Amino acid sequence: MTDETIDEIMGATYRALCKHGYASLRMQDIADESTKSKATLHYYYDSKHDLLCAFLEYLYDSFAERIAEPTGEDPVEELTALLDCLLTPRDENTHQQFQTAILEIKAQGPYDETFREKLTRFDRLMHDRIEGVLREGVESGHFAADVDPDGTAEFLVTILNGARSRYVAVEYPLDGTRTMLRRYVESSLLADGSGREVVAE
Amino acid sequence: MTDETIDEIMGATYRALCKHGYASLRMQDIADESTKSKATLHYYYDSKHDLLCAFLEYLYDSFAERIAEPTGEDPVEELTALLDCLLTPRDENTHQQFQTAILEIKAQGPYDETFREKLTRFDRLMHDRIEGVLREGVESGHFAADVDPDGTAEFLVTILNGARSRYVAVEYPLDGTRTMLRRYVESSLLADGSGREVVAE
Repeated sequence: MTDETIDEIMGATYRALCKHGYASLRMQDIADESTKSKATLHYYYDSKHDLLCAFLEYLYDSFAERIAEPTGEDPVEELTALLDCLLTPRDENTHQQFQTAILEIKAQGPYDETFREKLTRFDRLMHDRIEGVLREGVESGHFAADVDPDGTAEFLVTILNGARSRYVAVEYPLDGTRTMLRRYVESSLLADGSGREVVAE
Repeated sequence: MTDETIDEIMGATYRALCKHGYASLRMQDIADESTKSKATLHYYYDSKHDLLCAFLEYLYDSFAERIAEPTGEDPVEELTALLDCLLTPRDENTHQQFQTAILEIKAQGPYDETFREKLTRFDRLMHDRIEGVLREGVESGHFAADVDPDGTAEFLVTILNGARSRYVAVEYPLDGTRTMLRRYVESSLLADGSGREVVAE
């Protein structure tokens, strides 16, 4: 398969998931969003499950690129930029539909080992990226010496998960979480006397 | 319907949700867990959707009783007890299955207005209960004067949602979140110089 074909099929899968959600998604729905026929999709992927697993891989690669990007003058700025990036919809129009499909896939975690492995890779990637910035900031003295980079990164990943699940379930706005996260960084993570303000309201 | 009949049907719905999840649940699965026939269930509830809405109501009442209980010598103890209660499985054996079904129902939020309304009631109940304890603690001087009870309660509800969704999707243990929540209360919410320690490790 050429990269172009892969991009095309993955784009179609994204659009089909946004339109139909995960539970009722059929190969035909993906074909309908694609220039490829259902038979061609089946030629490349044995089942809908295989295609969705390939989609999660594809998403992982693009997510890895995306969360590597945020940067800043120092670790505090970098953490703030990273958390902002993780709370910013890539596409306002389809964000809620897509996050809903992802929440459906998360609810498959206990029943589907392959999905669970892939979800765990996302979870670890996010954790490790945040932990790296925290560790760097503790070493440079920007974050307090008693900040636990591992536990704090787990906590932040939990908060990001909660922001997405509340956004889907009860439409709680991502901005609310963004504001509180900045306050958390300020009150719990910054080194004493840094006098920094990361809360912009 | 007598209270006994209601309890019986709701218990059967709980067990059927744990066994089959939400997406593939049929009235027959609930009947199989119950002393009532499928025809009897249909006599009381027009559809599976109606029964599940009644179940969410029933769950709400029991949740309201449960989160009213935690108490303490002062607002700090009460908040800690409340967060512990919200992160403690009621039944270890079925907790993951049940939380998985609830996550599936949350993913229905955008498509199903009735579910969304009911989920919003849970969300508001949890928020208002936490906000009340925070407000009391700010007034009594146990929590810092600049703690925002409303925003902080939203943040805590987000964290509790995230703990549940990560527990389902990637088996991240609830205990990890419990520890970090206690640190958060200590570093971000307690009044300066209270010298309190809520972290028990």
